[in-house]
Amino acid sequence: MNQSEPRTVLIDRIGVLATNDPALGEGPTGEIADAALVIEDGRVAWAGPAAQAPAADARVDAAGRCAIPGFVDSHSHIVFAGDRSREFGARMSGRPYEAGGIRTTVAATRAASDAELLDNAVRLVREAQAQGTTTLEVKSGYGLSTADEERSLRVAGRVSDEVTFLGAHVVPPEYAEDPQGYVDLVTGEMLEACAPHARWIDVFCERGAFDEEASRRVLRAGADKGLLPRVHGNQLGTGPGVRLAVEVGAASVDHCTHLTAEDVDALAQAPETVATLLPGVDFSTRQPYPDARALLDAGATVALAGDCNPGSCFTSSIAFCIALAVREMRMTPEEALWAATAGGARALRRTDVGHLAPGARADLVLLDAPNPIYLAYRPGVPMVDAVWKDGHRVYGKDLTRG
Amino acid sequence: MNQSEPRTVLIDRIGVLATNDPALGEGPTGEIADAALVIEDGRVAWAGPAAQAPAADARVDAAGRCAIPGFVDSHSHIVFAGDRSREFGARMSGRPYEAGGIRTTVAATRAASDAELLDNAVRLVREAQAQGTTTLEVKSGYGLSTADEERSLRVAGRVSDEVTFLGAHVVPPEYAEDPQGYVDLVTGEMLEACAPHARWIDVFCERGAFDEEASRRVLRAGADKGLLPRVHGNQLGTGPGVRLAVEVGAASVDHCTHLTAEDVDALAQAPETVATLLPGVDFSTRQPYPDARALLDAGATVALAGDCNPGSCFTSSIAFCIALAVREMRMTPEEALWAATAGGARALRRTDVGHLAPGARADLVLLDAPNPIYLAYRPGVPMVDAVWKDGHRVYGKDLTRG
Ligand SMILES: [Zn+2]
Ligand SMILES: [Zn+2]
Repeated sequence: MNQSEPRTVLIDRIGVLATNDPALGEGPTGEIADAALVIEDGRVAWAGPAAQAPAADARVDAAGRCAIPGFVDSHSHIVFAGDRSREFGARMSGRPYEAGGIRTTVAATRAASDAELLDNAVRLVREAQAQGTTTLEVKSGYGLSTADEERSLRVAGRVSDEVTFLGAHVVPPEYAEDPQGYVDLVTGEMLEACAPHARWIDVFCERGAFDEEASRRVLRAGADKGLLPRVHGNQLGTGPGVRLAVEVGAASVDHCTHLTAEDVDALAQAPETVATLLPGVDFSTRQPYPDARALLDAGATVALAGDCNPGSCFTSSIAFCIALAVREMRMTPEEALWAATAGGARALRRTDVGHLAPGARADLVLLDAPNPIYLAYRPGVPMVDAVWKDGHRVYGKDLTRG
Repeated sequence: MNQSEPRTVLIDRIGVLATNDPALGEGPTGEIADAALVIEDGRVAWAGPAAQAPAADARVDAAGRCAIPGFVDSHSHIVFAGDRSREFGARMSGRPYEAGGIRTTVAATRAASDAELLDNAVRLVREAQAQGTTTLEVKSGYGLSTADEERSLRVAGRVSDEVTFLGAHVVPPEYAEDPQGYVDLVTGEMLEACAPHARWIDVFCERGAFDEEASRRVLRAGADKGLLPRVHGNQLGTGPGVRLAVEVGAASVDHCTHLTAEDVDALAQAPETVATLLPGVDFSTRQPYPDARALLDAGATVALAGDCNPGSCFTSSIAFCIALAVREMRMTPEEALWAATAGGARALRRTDVGHLAPGARADLVLLDAPNPIYLAYRPGVPMVDAVWKDGHRVYGKDLTRG
């Protein structure tokens, strides 16, 4: 990017480095105290005790701050237009509110120009990056017509490599009387137009959205076009979401707020289908939180993600989700950090992000804190000092000394 | 401060201006849409619809962002040394932890130099300011000897005008066998040394700390030296805190997590004694939240504050406390904003801060959001674009055009 960038950069005097590699350090997050890390060609070339660090062309003095892998936020809906803050305010205040809901966002999104959608998405990606998110999955799902879903995915592709086709988000108003017809559209013409622009296919498998059979049809049709499956499920009540996700080998089933013992069991037996918890949604909708302990204790793979969207959760702060996970879901600070980094990577079937072992992408965050417990210990406090993505500093002061 | 600063500054094109003056705008926070505000000599000279704004020497284009009074955080303990993040991590994970608790902070504070204490306090004040807090009360209470309390107050006085003597925070180890002797010290020699450096006297009136009689002695002795009373009470269980606060005419009783119907009644009858709620503490200690609705519906005056301290709540984010107040305590976004600004001002018996009517100090915050609901709608997301204190921009980009 920058011609004058040094070839190798040593980040030195890291108070605690969370590598997520138990072979490199202590505990589940592979913590190394008094650590250093070398970046070369956008990758981690070396990570270990500072005293053993190799030489490099340039040096960043972390001065005792901790470093963590960039957050891998595997769930967002940031391609949209419109403002629903008044609806949120009314809902939280117990006041009625006319004309709210997802349809408001669909109407505003359809009415927006491509440039407006892109501007909003870019703004939110930058905002997330400034808070430590270096990988952000982005879904369509507020277009709900072939043309509007396709352009939503084009916008998503401008800001992310992890693009998900979510035509099956909700049945749009014009198909209210013919939901089956909408599934035909999603699995037919819409999929045809959208598949080239996405890596993933997703479906909102929930009462009031798409039932088990329709969800299966959507995921199978997507798979036939080469899209990998993921599922929204078990948010508002128990249901077939988890079962279906495991059945089709989905990378993730997201929400998992309402699980039966069988669901927990199924996820424990299929650790390659990640249970992605979205506590920001439960916060902003005053729902109960998922039972993360049951999942973790059973051996399921747990990720934490943000679900940034204008309706049910408009946060882009993964640190906030970590604080909720610790407070409300009794995850340990280490489990929560792992889930928001390595867990997110698993939910996206990525091995190059979410950890800082040699060979990984140099996606990392320097926090103004001596250790990562601070993410939960200091809720709401912005602590991100600097962010590197692919070895390039994308946020924060330039701390490099040649 | 800056010789070249313009004499009057017009902040123009404010999407929504929350003045906290119902005479100036709509609702309890006196909201004006499409507003402007003029700063002159560190004060608000004018606030109203942008179309009617008078001319000024310089102009800031808010470009539709909202503006709110700076947060008035009436409760903090930021004069301390030491790190308790590991203790927090262990507590939240249900693991035993040796040698934690307030005594750890007392030992570290006593061992620290004045410069270390000041550096830490300055850092936290700046951090709070960058998050929109323009008035921050600061307590002693980790010295617990005459010399250490006095120097704590000197440090507090370097960073705040609202300084509180809290020698009666907890009985220190050396008085474990003679708590009465410690009250004698606090009300005698320690008070003598500390009173000149404080405006307020505070006591932790709680089982395990100071009982009603000892608390009354502390507050009365402080009053005799010209200190105004405030109380920590009803945090861990019901007790005499609220009753005592009302009896002595305290400006505030802080925590109020466990109240009887009589307590709520007493506060409703004495609205000049503010019920200051500290939801960050309840978050970080997994305690229940206070019943804000009962207090508000009864007519009590409610403030929200941060209680930034290394043990029970290490947040400096009032936006986070507002989000908790809305989610957990069912305050409306407007009630929460009022409580964190005007409410805090009442809890400090200040009429010059916490609102933006003409004559008020020009302490205000520009948020990267179209309205203040976003403080609760986007939890954890840093949204403070610029902060003015006494009319001077103390955080954010300089947006002024001459
Ligand atoms: Zn979602
Ligand atoms: Zn306190």
